[in-house]
Amino acid sequence: MTQRRKLFPSSEELLIWRDFIETTEALRSELASRLQTDSSLSPGDYAVLLGLREADGNRLRPSALAARIGWQRSRLSHQIGRMERRGLIRREECPTDSRGAEVVLTPEGAEAFRGASLPHLRAVRELFVDPLTRDQLAAAEQIAATLRTRLDAMGGI
Amino acid sequence: MTQRRKLFPSSEELLIWRDFIETTEALRSELASRLQTDSSLSPGDYAVLLGLREADGNRLRPSALAARIGWQRSRLSHQIGRMERRGLIRREECPTDSRGAEVVLTPEGAEAFRGASLPHLRAVRELFVDPLTRDQLAAAEQIAATLRTRLDAMGGI
Repeated sequence: MTQRRKLFPSSEELLIWRDFIETTEALRSELASRLQTDSSLSPGDYAVLLGLREADGNRLRPSALAARIGWQRSRLSHQIGRMERRGLIRREECPTDSRGAEVVLTPEGAEAFRGASLPHLRAVRELFVDPLTRDQLAAAEQIAATLRTRLDAMGGI
Repeated sequence: MTQRRKLFPSSEELLIWRDFIETTEALRSELASRLQTDSSLSPGDYAVLLGLREADGNRLRPSALAARIGWQRSRLSHQIGRMERRGLIRREECPTDSRGAEVVLTPEGAEAFRGASLPHLRAVRELFVDPLTRDQLAAAEQIAATLRTRLDAMGGI
């Protein structure tokens, strides 16, 4: 005899869900607000600069950059336009390749990233790494992996 | 001899942080997108309707509503204006109390909440409760509580 699957979460499960999603959102929002105060970069700016900083030659095609930071192409296109106008990145045609422009980190972008990184990393330590025990950190890793697998299976982003 | 505290996260801790914050954001975004598709309500609309639905008489002062859903007053004021124009809530003077208007759930708001709830609860089960083991769910609860305590201690929201 198989047990009938519950259609809806129990009230206890719902409380856990609400605390979890609201706390992670508050954490994201606090980090974003500190980043903006410390460096005038948005979390989106930071993600793009980080993606380029870690790429070979500090340059990537938009499709590769989108994949690396887990964004959809349309979102990245708008972001790239805004960051190009601020001089943080530039688009550069690739002479040996007909597949179009690469996105390149500018010296101004590299400088902005350097200035933002130290306070941002301190904030990540202070608000996420330090308060959690080793076991909780390992559990957070497993929970994220499990949720990501389910999201991917559902065609989520 | 005391051990010197690390200033920055290790690269392993940073990977866990990135996976964790990006996955919870993707989860929030997927839930928001399903809510909008299923009901034309935003997560903000849903939070306000849920707060009023659970209140005595389906009515609350804005300050009490803001505290209940964990928002700042300015954010709630904008949200209330938009929802009032759509007929989901109304503002009502309280005759026995000089402290100003209460926010009241309208029949249209109650109906919209009912229509949104079942698909939303199914999505919470499918994307959060079901994939996690009992131990992971308990760990998620502890992690959220720990992170919330730290955020509150830092004056975060």
